[in-house]
Amino acid sequence: MVPALLTDLYELTMVDAYLAEGLHEEAAFSLFVRRLPTRRNFLLACGLEQALTYLETLRFSPGELAWLESLGRFSRQLLDWLEHFHFNGDVHAVPEGTPVFGQEPLLEVVAPLPEAQLVETYLINQVHLQTLAASKAARVVEAARGRPVVDFGVRRMHGEDAGLKVARAAHVAGVSATSNLQAAQRYGIPVAGTLAHSYIQAHDDELAAFRAYVHRFPETTLLVDTYDTLDGVRKVVALAKELGPDFHVQAVRLDSGDLASLSHQTRALLDAAGLERVRIFASGGLDEDEVARLLAHQAPIDAFGVGTAMGVSEDAPALDMAYKLVEYAGRGRLKLSPGKVLLPGRKQVFREEWDGVASRDMLACHDEVLPGRPLLRQVMHAGRRLEGASPPLTALRMHAREELTRLPLELRGLEPARPPYPVAVSPALSAAKEQVVARLREQLPAH
Amino acid sequence: MVPALLTDLYELTMVDAYLAEGLHEEAAFSLFVRRLPTRRNFLLACGLEQALTYLETLRFSPGELAWLESLGRFSRQLLDWLEHFHFNGDVHAVPEGTPVFGQEPLLEVVAPLPEAQLVETYLINQVHLQTLAASKAARVVEAARGRPVVDFGVRRMHGEDAGLKVARAAHVAGVSATSNLQAAQRYGIPVAGTLAHSYIQAHDDELAAFRAYVHRFPETTLLVDTYDTLDGVRKVVALAKELGPDFHVQAVRLDSGDLASLSHQTRALLDAAGLERVRIFASGGLDEDEVARLLAHQAPIDAFGVGTAMGVSEDAPALDMAYKLVEYAGRGRLKLSPGKVLLPGRKQVFREEWDGVASRDMLACHDEVLPGRPLLRQVMHAGRRLEGASPPLTALRMHAREELTRLPLELRGLEPARPPYPVAVSPALSAAKEQVVARLREQLPAH
Repeated sequence: MVPALLTDLYELTMVDAYLAEGLHEEAAFSLFVRRLPTRRNFLLACGLEQALTYLETLRFSPGELAWLESLGRFSRQLLDWLEHFHFNGDVHAVPEGTPVFGQEPLLEVVAPLPEAQLVETYLINQVHLQTLAASKAARVVEAARGRPVVDFGVRRMHGEDAGLKVARAAHVAGVSATSNLQAAQRYGIPVAGTLAHSYIQAHDDELAAFRAYVHRFPETTLLVDTYDTLDGVRKVVALAKELGPDFHVQAVRLDSGDLASLSHQTRALLDAAGLERVRIFASGGLDEDEVARLLAHQAPIDAFGVGTAMGVSEDAPALDMAYKLVEYAGRGRLKLSPGKVLLPGRKQVFREEWDGVASRDMLACHDEVLPGRPLLRQVMHAGRRLEGASPPLTALRMHAREELTRLPLELRGLEPARPPYPVAVSPALSAAKEQVVARLREQLPAH
Repeated sequence: MVPALLTDLYELTMVDAYLAEGLHEEAAFSLFVRRLPTRRNFLLACGLEQALTYLETLRFSPGELAWLESLGRFSRQLLDWLEHFHFNGDVHAVPEGTPVFGQEPLLEVVAPLPEAQLVETYLINQVHLQTLAASKAARVVEAARGRPVVDFGVRRMHGEDAGLKVARAAHVAGVSATSNLQAAQRYGIPVAGTLAHSYIQAHDDELAAFRAYVHRFPETTLLVDTYDTLDGVRKVVALAKELGPDFHVQAVRLDSGDLASLSHQTRALLDAAGLERVRIFASGGLDEDEVARLLAHQAPIDAFGVGTAMGVSEDAPALDMAYKLVEYAGRGRLKLSPGKVLLPGRKQVFREEWDGVASRDMLACHDEVLPGRPLLRQVMHAGRRLEGASPPLTALRMHAREELTRLPLELRGLEPARPPYPVAVSPALSAAKEQVVARLREQLPAH
């Protein structure tokens, strides 16, 4: 069930006032990121599925209504309205797994003002988290240059819901598997995992631990760095000799120390023992920079387990994401607060491509027809999800992969692209903005 | 209901192997943070309540068991064991709201090895999030020097659960109120909120918007920066003249621009109009540094709304928190992985104080009796929470306030204290470590 109270108090007080004033004409709100973090050349849109589910199922229960009433702040009119609330609006959105840039709407809600206002907090909460996570994960996947990346981050993700949704977003962005059983169950993501140091430590002898674990899970990955990494590898080799044809261990895992040097030495030890088919899995505080650095050193690592840094988007744990009123009662709306640029009205984004590679985005009014591929499409009408609005996760993942290959190569690098990807504003949208600004300035005293 | 599957696959494979081997003697695991982030002089322990609830209520449902079975990885023995699982162990912990330092256990679990192993992922997930959030919020509260701080962060916190738990942790750390209705309902936190720019924008005229809102909510806070902050303040003044004795607006809110200069000018405009009692509330991208900077400029701000930076602990969105086996079958356990120091055995922390101010912590073996106040106490026995283990939130908040005043003043500043707070290791614990290291080194080849 959707937590109807997971919202800011002011959404309800504003709705209360809108109802009292009869402000229920059609409004359009845009959800977008104002500016990208320094080390993001693009964002990967994600979280639309949860946004649509919320809009379809948001209801206020008798218990929630009673509690709201007990606050003594709200009118009977609001409480009655909430009791019968269901969302009736339209939504236009960029498909999950599409790269987007600053100022570009990820989704737009068109509904009577109170309805469109009410849903602000939760829509941001969900789309923000998954877009943040998918954008970070895409960098790690890019850095791994085709090697599988496994999500190990659930323990330090921010709570239960992040534990689920970040795993989903990372999978959309190209992460191959997750250690998280709940995310695997919920979303059908492949699940992966090895063993922890505690398992080795609980045994009095490391080789005995390996032997016991392999007896139970013959095709596992053995964690070799509990005491001394290379000594651990030698014990794996010893176990291979001991078991002969019954040795089916798939990989060894290095989780600490100088992974570049250790992986080379590990590869040499394994190869010398005829264990060329045993792969090397690396983990331990990895992020996209460390993965890139390891591969730049030709580290013979076959797959990466990435945890905290990807799970919390450590270098940029939040996006400057907003949900802003851009149109009410047929008129474009703006605010003029310094440093917070806004463009009025509903929009479309046209992605212009040359030879299959994106060359420029054009932010336009929603009814313009311009060259390029329009990114926003209608996904909900009158509160109902449209057919095709929710592709399966495998399709989203495929879509993300395709869209990412259509970005200019320098954008997919880890460093800030110079110049950044160009996002232009169409003449019609610029003119609309000037018009609204002029109208608003008329009200203000001359400076 | 506790999500039993919100765990790493390897917890279950390890338990499977433990059961197969009959490794079910008593184990002790320590949950601690290895090193504090650079800009944290202390951490504020938080999240124990959720940890205990998890341990008391963790059960595997038939649907979860069926799904686990469908993976084809697990033994019948494991599935049967999970079907009948409930946690029977003991827990010792530092009370929520207590400052802790690197290497100090926040909690220790003592239980048969498979039970203690199984709960790792979720315990970290919950204690990590709230300790992270409380530690960041304590800095913001300190920076505000007694002025109320309101949590505005739910929209960009990482999902639903973070939206709840971060608000709880921030309240423990001294944040006065939250804009988050669900957190307010769940935990009894005072709720606060004003109005958004969208409300002003939806009206054709800013003064008309103020008038309408105040008609519905006379004692509200008015957001004045939608078009021009000082012009907005003048409109509030105009409204005060218009309404005379019916004007009950409590505050104006500044949300953008140069808050230091704008707050001074706003104060002057309000005072000149005889509105000395109207307070100034500031928000808009604030963190502890910005709050401190504003107050250093004598900005006449009476309260702060702090959102994203506090809500995601932006400068340090994760802690190096681990849950490590330190004892099994009566023997201290370690790993020797480089860069990851571990101390064996169950522990106690003694906080030595001079004249009511903490002077040093001593990490000791759990059965030592040393000078100072022991921080860990038993909170669960045989799977049951002990009396007094879960004080109400108001008591935790009071406890945090008291404990924070007992820290040396330089530790409560925003910059890294030089030298950092001293955490010593008792001779007995040092000796225990040397003994375990020597035992483990015997197995390793000479270097």
